[in-house]
Amino acid sequence: MADAPYKLVLLRHGESEWNAKNLFTGWVDVDLTEKGEKEAARGGQLLLDAGVLPDVLHTSLQRRAIRTAQLALDVADLNWLPVRRSWRLNERHYGALQGKDKKQTLEEFGEEQFMLWRRSYDTPPPPLADDDEYSQFADRRYASLPVEIRPRTECLKDVVERMLPYWYDAIVPDLFGGDTVLVAAHGNSLRALVKHLDGVSDADIAGLNIPTGIPLLYELDADLRPVTPGGRYLDPEAAAAAIEAVKNQGRK
Amino acid sequence: MADAPYKLVLLRHGESEWNAKNLFTGWVDVDLTEKGEKEAARGGQLLLDAGVLPDVLHTSLQRRAIRTAQLALDVADLNWLPVRRSWRLNERHYGALQGKDKKQTLEEFGEEQFMLWRRSYDTPPPPLADDDEYSQFADRRYASLPVEIRPRTECLKDVVERMLPYWYDAIVPDLFGGDTVLVAAHGNSLRALVKHLDGVSDADIAGLNIPTGIPLLYELDADLRPVTPGGRYLDPEAAAAAIEAVKNQGRK
Repeated sequence: MADAPYKLVLLRHGESEWNAKNLFTGWVDVDLTEKGEKEAARGGQLLLDAGVLPDVLHTSLQRRAIRTAQLALDVADLNWLPVRRSWRLNERHYGALQGKDKKQTLEEFGEEQFMLWRRSYDTPPPPLADDDEYSQFADRRYASLPVEIRPRTECLKDVVERMLPYWYDAIVPDLFGGDTVLVAAHGNSLRALVKHLDGVSDADIAGLNIPTGIPLLYELDADLRPVTPGGRYLDPEAAAAAIEAVKNQGRK
Repeated sequence: MADAPYKLVLLRHGESEWNAKNLFTGWVDVDLTEKGEKEAARGGQLLLDAGVLPDVLHTSLQRRAIRTAQLALDVADLNWLPVRRSWRLNERHYGALQGKDKKQTLEEFGEEQFMLWRRSYDTPPPPLADDDEYSQFADRRYASLPVEIRPRTECLKDVVERMLPYWYDAIVPDLFGGDTVLVAAHGNSLRALVKHLDGVSDADIAGLNIPTGIPLLYELDADLRPVTPGGRYLDPEAAAAAIEAVKNQGRK
């Protein structure tokens, strides 16, 4: 369509080892489970079936998103795509909650505090110490990230703020260059992007969940506004069912 | 060492489906075999064990090299590295031999012609027609390659000529920037690079084989000359054994 010249595809990583264990993960670099690998491959098949063929891939620096993209693009015969990566697409840093059991945290701190940390727009969990076993800052991949910019905890507002420079500086130029862009990332970095694209309010974003492994296609107009608010999942029924399931996380 | 400031690691892809079938492959985009996947993972382990940790990855546009790099870097916890890819790192285009059985070709054309096509520096096989079933030019990955530059057949001299611009324009700047560079590519694109690095003569390059899946480390001086001619395989014994095996290809 002449009035929807740009195509953006968002892909949240498949189930990770800590999703399966119901632990807060954040910047801890856990791998996909076998189920997560299958979700990723199916995501690639959905791209193929829909004829939505990206020209370029952007990922976080985290293994679960990187491998999701690899597995999806292997299936779609697109693993040759140019790739760029950035910590700005990483999952929200969950601070001192990283490594903690979600159910235990709910019981220990109560529903109100639990939901505030999980879903409030501007209340971050307590910060994680740099020498905590779940801090990732000894990792070479963050060696070029000056200490003052390294997150020790984040609320979604923080994620929006650190993600947007990458959107404007790296992804938008690819879109304006005519490329269909695939972004393989995380629940909260993608919620941050969706909040920006759809102009979701600080209050309403709490209720928005993005299912894993199902490509979410945004067709964008010349001003990069979504032609269809909320975009379009390439498997809408599976997406609807998964969104319900995510809402019940922490209660199982 | 002050006089060997630059580190370059070459990695030839593991066994492919057509290596296993003893067919000429060239630009046909076959996948790794299970054995090839294991070779790739072991290559990653060798990097880890040697403490040779690349900062950036360069690959061809071909699945077998891309997946070798993915599998190796998954093992080495380096799959987050920045990546660049280019057709200039692709395998030699084998022209009309693509898809043909090596043993049958040897019998049909005789030892002399066979070795001329396989190992002479400047005698390419007959060209492949663009509409041949083994032409890859319908593939989107080559859509931005103007028709006049697309190879229909190549001798090693042709590979040197199309590879060197990428060496100078993409790899050398990374080396001069201080990065340890990993190049995941193919038997002949890597032979072309080794010929350049070591100043191997047109005659002597015929006898040089690079084994699959074993990282080859070059330490380079300020003029990008190898400190140790021929570099150093991270598993020298396995490399020596594999080099012998490659020499006997086409005779099994």
